Amino acid sequence: MKVFKIGGNVVDCPEALESFCREFAAIEGPKVLVHGGGVVANQIQKALGQEPVKIAGRRVTDGETLKVVTMVYAGWCNKNITALLQREGCNAIGLSGCDANAICASRRAPLLIDGQEIDFGAVGDVDAASVNTDLFESLCSAGLTPVVCAINHDGKGNLLNTNADTIASSIAVALKAELVYCFEKNGVLMDRDDEDSVIRRMDPALFGELQKKGIIADGMIPKVQNAFKALREGASSVVIRNSANLAKDGGTRFVL
Amino acid sequence: MKVFKIGGNVVDCPEALESFCREFAAIEGPKVLVHGGGVVANQIQKALGQEPVKIAGRRVTDGETLKVVTMVYAGWCNKNITALLQREGCNAIGLSGCDANAICASRRAPLLIDGQEIDFGAVGDVDAASVNTDLFESLCSAGLTPVVCAINHDGKGNLLNTNADTIASSIAVALKAELVYCFEKNGVLMDRDDEDSVIRRMDPALFGELQKKGIIADGMIPKVQNAFKALREGASSVVIRNSANLAKDGGTRFVL
Repeated sequence: MKVFKIGGNVVDCPEALESFCREFAAIEGPKVLVHGGGVVANQIQKALGQEPVKIAGRRVTDGETLKVVTMVYAGWCNKNITALLQREGCNAIGLSGCDANAICASRRAPLLIDGQEIDFGAVGDVDAASVNTDLFESLCSAGLTPVVCAINHDGKGNLLNTNADTIASSIAVALKAELVYCFEKNGVLMDRDDEDSVIRRMDPALFGELQKKGIIADGMIPKVQNAFKALREGASSVVIRNSANLAKDGGTRFVL
Repeated sequence: MKVFKIGGNVVDCPEALESFCREFAAIEGPKVLVHGGGVVANQIQKALGQEPVKIAGRRVTDGETLKVVTMVYAGWCNKNITALLQREGCNAIGLSGCDANAICASRRAPLLIDGQEIDFGAVGDVDAASVNTDLFESLCSAGLTPVVCAINHDGKGNLLNTNADTIASSIAVALKAELVYCFEKNGVLMDRDDEDSVIRRMDPALFGELQKKGIIADGMIPKVQNAFKALREGASSVVIRNSANLAKDGGTRFVL
């Protein structure tokens, strides 16, 4: 079983998405695709006159924001990807967490920030225990390919916005699957301007060393941390790689 | 097997929707719910500065309109209804036509109107042959309740906007199921201002007579025509009734 995650660089670009779907459809064996939402949600929010609110770097999901991300992720993105995969002969089925109770998230409790209690709204947290493994296994056994967005439910009738990277790792851990994070670079790079400088094999010691030297920095740090976490928790393998040329092996493979 | 259709009077009103979901969840046996979209799509279109275009009474679905209806019907409405049903213990699974190729529509050909060829855009037509009966039967056998919106695909990677009443009748015909059209009135009324004047049993002769007298008029005519059509094509029964008090028998039953 393989779990792929794609983000804005694919979802936001019709040509990249079509090409990805063609390559993804051709991959043999049971597989799951998890997608993020990209910039469309921001565009719609802006067009509707909504002002995205962030506190301490985290997005607050109020009722209007939840409406927009549900419309964009679960509606527009999820159904477009599913329709494109159907065209390529891949029997895709789009899922939000509420569908057949695929993923049940828990609403994030308010956080104390600078002595003030901040409610982040309709934001959910998930882990491997949130994943309905029976459902994913039976869909895959029936020849279907789940296409999962990051909109989930809490089992109490509420939708929650969650993190697509975490959805992907939770599914991979729950299914003991191979996890493939696809993004716009060829992998974790020794030189961020040189796409040929991919680090093929990454263990925690190397990560510590490269982080100290500033070679792995900024947004790459949580990506690598997530990769190790998924591996420790039970994903059978974890790779970070380019979303293009899926048929070609490549990227950074994580080992413990 | 029972197929229920709800429209704007339920989908647009949170209290009505919660109450409907509670009653629908309690109905025993295999069932399918088809929903329309209501006024939310119009609100979003307006907020985005889009001007709904109608030609000869039919809505033209251009690319921007398709985006909005997909976001609203397949995203916001479909996932909210599914999450509410999950809360009530009904194992609902939201579906657009592209999901597992549930319904494959054909794009409506341009029409000649006043000597001009009019392209209605991303509008699809469906009939019973468009419905993946194996899928609906296997989902229901697995204890799942499909919740279907009127966004479909053409198998060529394109999404199409279709008519929710026709989706409901096509599914009912394909599955030889009971079809229940729910709306804001108690059924077809002899006196449109008296909810107690429900016509319990309607055959084609009575329809002709009441239409001649003007008792059945306006928007009620296509509803009744659709009901007879579904029955002729193979739905096991057809009822038009109020969306409230589902447990209570009622409404207008059609016979040939």
